[in-house]
Amino acid sequence: MTVSFSDRANAIRALSMDAVEAANSGHPGMPMGMADVATVLFQRYLKFDPAAPRWPDRDRFVLSAGHGSMLIYSLLHLTGYARPTLEDIRNFRQIGSPCAGHPENFELAGVEATTGPLGQGLAMAVGMAIAERHLNATFGNDLVDHHTWVIAGDGCLMEGINHEAIGLAGHLKLDRLIVLWDDNKITIDGSVSLSSSEDIVARYEATGWYVTECDGHDEDSIVAAIEEARDEDRPALIRCRTIIGKGAPNKQGTSKVHGAALGKDEVAAARETLGWHHGPFEVPEDIRAAWLETGKRGAEAHNKWQERLASHSDRAAFEARDTASSDWLKPYVDGLLANPQNVATRKASEMALEAINTALPQTIGGSADLTGSNNTLTRNLVALTAGTYEGRYIYYGIREFGMAAAMNGMALHGGVIPYGGTFLVFSDYARAAIRLSALQQTRVAYVMTHDSIGLGEDGPTHQPIEHVMSLRLIPNLDVYRPCDTIETAECWALALEKNDGPSLLALSRQNLPQLRTDGGENRSAKGAYRLLAAEAERKVVLIATGSEVEIAVAVRAALEAQGIGADVVSMPSWERFDAQTAEYRDEVLPHHVLRVSIEAGTTMGWERYTGIGGLRFGIDRFGASGPAPALYEYFGLTAAAIAPKIVAALG
Amino acid sequence: MTVSFSDRANAIRALSMDAVEAANSGHPGMPMGMADVATVLFQRYLKFDPAAPRWPDRDRFVLSAGHGSMLIYSLLHLTGYARPTLEDIRNFRQIGSPCAGHPENFELAGVEATTGPLGQGLAMAVGMAIAERHLNATFGNDLVDHHTWVIAGDGCLMEGINHEAIGLAGHLKLDRLIVLWDDNKITIDGSVSLSSSEDIVARYEATGWYVTECDGHDEDSIVAAIEEARDEDRPALIRCRTIIGKGAPNKQGTSKVHGAALGKDEVAAARETLGWHHGPFEVPEDIRAAWLETGKRGAEAHNKWQERLASHSDRAAFEARDTASSDWLKPYVDGLLANPQNVATRKASEMALEAINTALPQTIGGSADLTGSNNTLTRNLVALTAGTYEGRYIYYGIREFGMAAAMNGMALHGGVIPYGGTFLVFSDYARAAIRLSALQQTRVAYVMTHDSIGLGEDGPTHQPIEHVMSLRLIPNLDVYRPCDTIETAECWALALEKNDGPSLLALSRQNLPQLRTDGGENRSAKGAYRLLAAEAERKVVLIATGSEVEIAVAVRAALEAQGIGADVVSMPSWERFDAQTAEYRDEVLPHHVLRVSIEAGTTMGWERYTGIGGLRFGIDRFGASGPAPALYEYFGLTAAAIAPKIVAALG
Repeated sequence: MTVSFSDRANAIRALSMDAVEAANSGHPGMPMGMADVATVLFQRYLKFDPAAPRWPDRDRFVLSAGHGSMLIYSLLHLTGYARPTLEDIRNFRQIGSPCAGHPENFELAGVEATTGPLGQGLAMAVGMAIAERHLNATFGNDLVDHHTWVIAGDGCLMEGINHEAIGLAGHLKLDRLIVLWDDNKITIDGSVSLSSSEDIVARYEATGWYVTECDGHDEDSIVAAIEEARDEDRPALIRCRTIIGKGAPNKQGTSKVHGAALGKDEVAAARETLGWHHGPFEVPEDIRAAWLETGKRGAEAHNKWQERLASHSDRAAFEARDTASSDWLKPYVDGLLANPQNVATRKASEMALEAINTALPQTIGGSADLTGSNNTLTRNLVALTAGTYEGRYIYYGIREFGMAAAMNGMALHGGVIPYGGTFLVFSDYARAAIRLSALQQTRVAYVMTHDSIGLGEDGPTHQPIEHVMSLRLIPNLDVYRPCDTIETAECWALALEKNDGPSLLALSRQNLPQLRTDGGENRSAKGAYRLLAAEAERKVVLIATGSEVEIAVAVRAALEAQGIGADVVSMPSWERFDAQTAEYRDEVLPHHVLRVSIEAGTTMGWERYTGIGGLRFGIDRFGASGPAPALYEYFGLTAAAIAPKIVAALG
Repeated sequence: MTVSFSDRANAIRALSMDAVEAANSGHPGMPMGMADVATVLFQRYLKFDPAAPRWPDRDRFVLSAGHGSMLIYSLLHLTGYARPTLEDIRNFRQIGSPCAGHPENFELAGVEATTGPLGQGLAMAVGMAIAERHLNATFGNDLVDHHTWVIAGDGCLMEGINHEAIGLAGHLKLDRLIVLWDDNKITIDGSVSLSSSEDIVARYEATGWYVTECDGHDEDSIVAAIEEARDEDRPALIRCRTIIGKGAPNKQGTSKVHGAALGKDEVAAARETLGWHHGPFEVPEDIRAAWLETGKRGAEAHNKWQERLASHSDRAAFEARDTASSDWLKPYVDGLLANPQNVATRKASEMALEAINTALPQTIGGSADLTGSNNTLTRNLVALTAGTYEGRYIYYGIREFGMAAAMNGMALHGGVIPYGGTFLVFSDYARAAIRLSALQQTRVAYVMTHDSIGLGEDGPTHQPIEHVMSLRLIPNLDVYRPCDTIETAECWALALEKNDGPSLLALSRQNLPQLRTDGGENRSAKGAYRLLAAEAERKVVLIATGSEVEIAVAVRAALEAQGIGADVVSMPSWERFDAQTAEYRDEVLPHHVLRVSIEAGTTMGWERYTGIGGLRFGIDRFGASGPAPALYEYFGLTAAAIAPKIVAALG
């Protein structure tokens, strides 16, 4: 007996409902509803090789509706990936199983992106599709020529980021991007019509997409739609009309199947409805064999690609794309030592990027419509546009969140290292994607300028207060706030070297003096170090970051003039400092002296280094509109205001 | 000589370019480009009374493109608002002037919303328009019958939040909302076409909006478009074709006029082009008089409204809308004391809301498609829909950011107190609007459930780690993390009483015991208090929040069993605790004992209360997928894991 299309799809349905049932937690509705569409995609179109899940020229598949994680776990298992095993699936949503509640790229090869926070999967896929076209333009069809596929739900389309993502994709004419929209008309609260009256097809068309549709439970209809979408020279949305939870006879088509186990009776009824007369987690051998055969479909394409790579003139360049040397750093810093520059750290960042972008062909820069302010465009970059994918600079438009998610997608794709800029205060717009950079361990560099009241007249809406500290709280995100040209270059080197997580540079709008006079060692790598040692007997340690290190230097001078010895510690990175040995940390921040922090942002959190008994100078309210020097005075962040308070505290 | 339309508009242009020039900072392009449109709006349509800027039935005007702040400063000044004075305008962007870089609602009556972070102004206007329709349905045309007008730029339309905002507005058929789009084809980076190829008209139409257009420099054309828009039974977008910086002959139509002073020469040339032969900041008397006359246009409407209000049967109810009594609290807590409930705090919140929504008719609830999870819908609320604006529950859809901004708009409008829910981890999606709640001092209550790893199986993408702490960093946002039913009710009372800022409740998914046995006083009002006092000699103070207070109680029992005295301090609110006297704080957190924090989130920041020498139990990495009890064990957040570490630390 041949294995039918339904058999394949029902294997996904059964594994999904069984796993959710065993966990008594999860989302059966989406995997059951999209099982047919996914079957067509994996059986006929997706270019993948379970034996080599990281093969660079594979198609990318992103389950943007990440709550339907059992869909991809089922597919990876059935097509023969090493993981998840059946045991992994039995342990769905249990500690230790790679089959987590939502799919996580760091748990399973084959999961290209961590999804669940709605809208971001599709937005990351846009980044993957950009990376693909860029690498295709750079290395040619022989090495790079693949599609990016997305399954997205109504939630992914309703989130604001969808607008930014599809706007970017439409503008860049990313024709290798195909989105399969699970149009089941149901959200958690009930019918989509409770909250939306939008004509989604018209909206996508208005944004430069090709749109077609299919019956999401009819193989031929799905095939026809995908064929159409593949032929287009635009990104494509396929509206798949589906029934959520299809196969669960009493609950399908309602929000009841979305996010809870079906229950024993409904699972039994679904088995009847589907004609699936097998036990829990049981997949008959013939269906298993058919799916495994599908999993072998890509081996030939993969082997041919390996052959092409082996003899390709660009092989070395292609394979070097995911390594970022810091060889550029020393000559660049030597130049600064010979010829010091008193510039804003955003300008220092641009200067470093001139060296970086020359040395590292894999960087792709950009800004969310603040190019001239973020100083992200260097002379050697040209724009990446629909016509010129080989360009290395993206005008992201006023799309901070979309930019961040696209950068995640590029980094996940590999072969490129993205960086992108906006004002630090607008990190709030992108924060959910910055968190996903950290969780997914992507090498993304955020260039966040105008990092304090030092931006001046734009006022409270634009002045970060809580931002630097709040970003430090995100696990696996390295936040840097360099104080001068040399630290900025050092922090850039650290950001690019880190291949298992994002970095964020908080940079000043205003000019700052070059404080460092040495460059042999990357001192920022330790997170904090003694920039200036006390001359008189050490009574005080001044800890400062970024633009306030200059102030700490002035405070030190005022204290030393009164015979009070004071160190200045520059602390560009908390994360790196906390990772040093206790000996080093105690040596930099000795006990039994007054520790004082100076940072033009919230003081909350600085007790970590000053102790409760130390002093913390900062700003614990919203900012104000005025010229930067006036604001520093207004908020008491000057040597003249700070030094006397330290003297008073010393008694 | 009569004052012409151009004279009026040029007065705006001249003040704008002069103020930017004097500050050598600001954005002349937008005010100069939209001066004609704004002149039509203020001269003919906007219902306002500068003598009574807070008159409840006034039209609302939101300058969503807030960088063009000189447009509204000019208009408020010219039409006769008490502020800004000419002196205020001369001091544009200087400390102390209410004419800040971006318009701020707390600086000037007549500025309805703080704008500048792009997209949010329009999204807040949606909230205002909802509040208007709701109050209209509740109180009738005699008391509430006005429009909400918006000027928005390309940036406002490109931001993701625009999609959420217009989707909500279209769905709710907010026909009193009219958006004037400054279609100048320029962004900061250059032409809009650098980053976007979208057909904006088609997108708005797809979302249920009426769209028309005008020549933004032709009075008749502008009038015709507004007349059309007003007649529609849908929200309307008017595409105003304009030239950015119109009047500056050498720079207009380019990004050069967007965000910098024109420079002396170009200002002089603009004066020539405009035929404005007056000195800096000088407005001829006849033009001034004409604008002042316009300012008096609304007095009659205002007076008639006052008369209608005076004799209206609902007057008392109408005037009571902005006061929130906590009379509901005591009887509700008495009930809990008599009949303790061990429920999740999200459920406790729903129970409190049952009492609140009965006692306070001005609340409007909602959720971003997590109604059943956030427990935000009480039995006595019906949905607010296009047909039934008197409803008090909004199905916001999967639009966290749009929901938060709409709530800001509702609160700014007044007459309603909005609350809305999502998962705490998705506060990241809404964070930029939460910040604007705090900056704008709006009474908005955020119901953020699933507040820790305690949500269990959904895993790291859904488990807040850094969120509670990062929200505490936002100035003027009161963050509450209550531990049981009684604290939850107390925190709700505090949130509703606070009329000058937002509150955020972080609530558990999992059940928690009712720990409080007293209810006479709102103990949460102090932010932290001694829930249980040491029985043996006090050696330890255990500080915990929310779901970890239960754990602290168990740790205390384990310590006391070993003869170690330990207090349990419940700390639902850092902000409120920090506002207490030093005596109170020292009494609750005495020195010279070991202070220990327990919170299922980042430990960074807790040094503030534990000191460097204290202990901090929490989670400084991303979460994991598994059942909640297993996760607490996995992360060492159990009495069995914590108590021995405390004993060890005591030596």
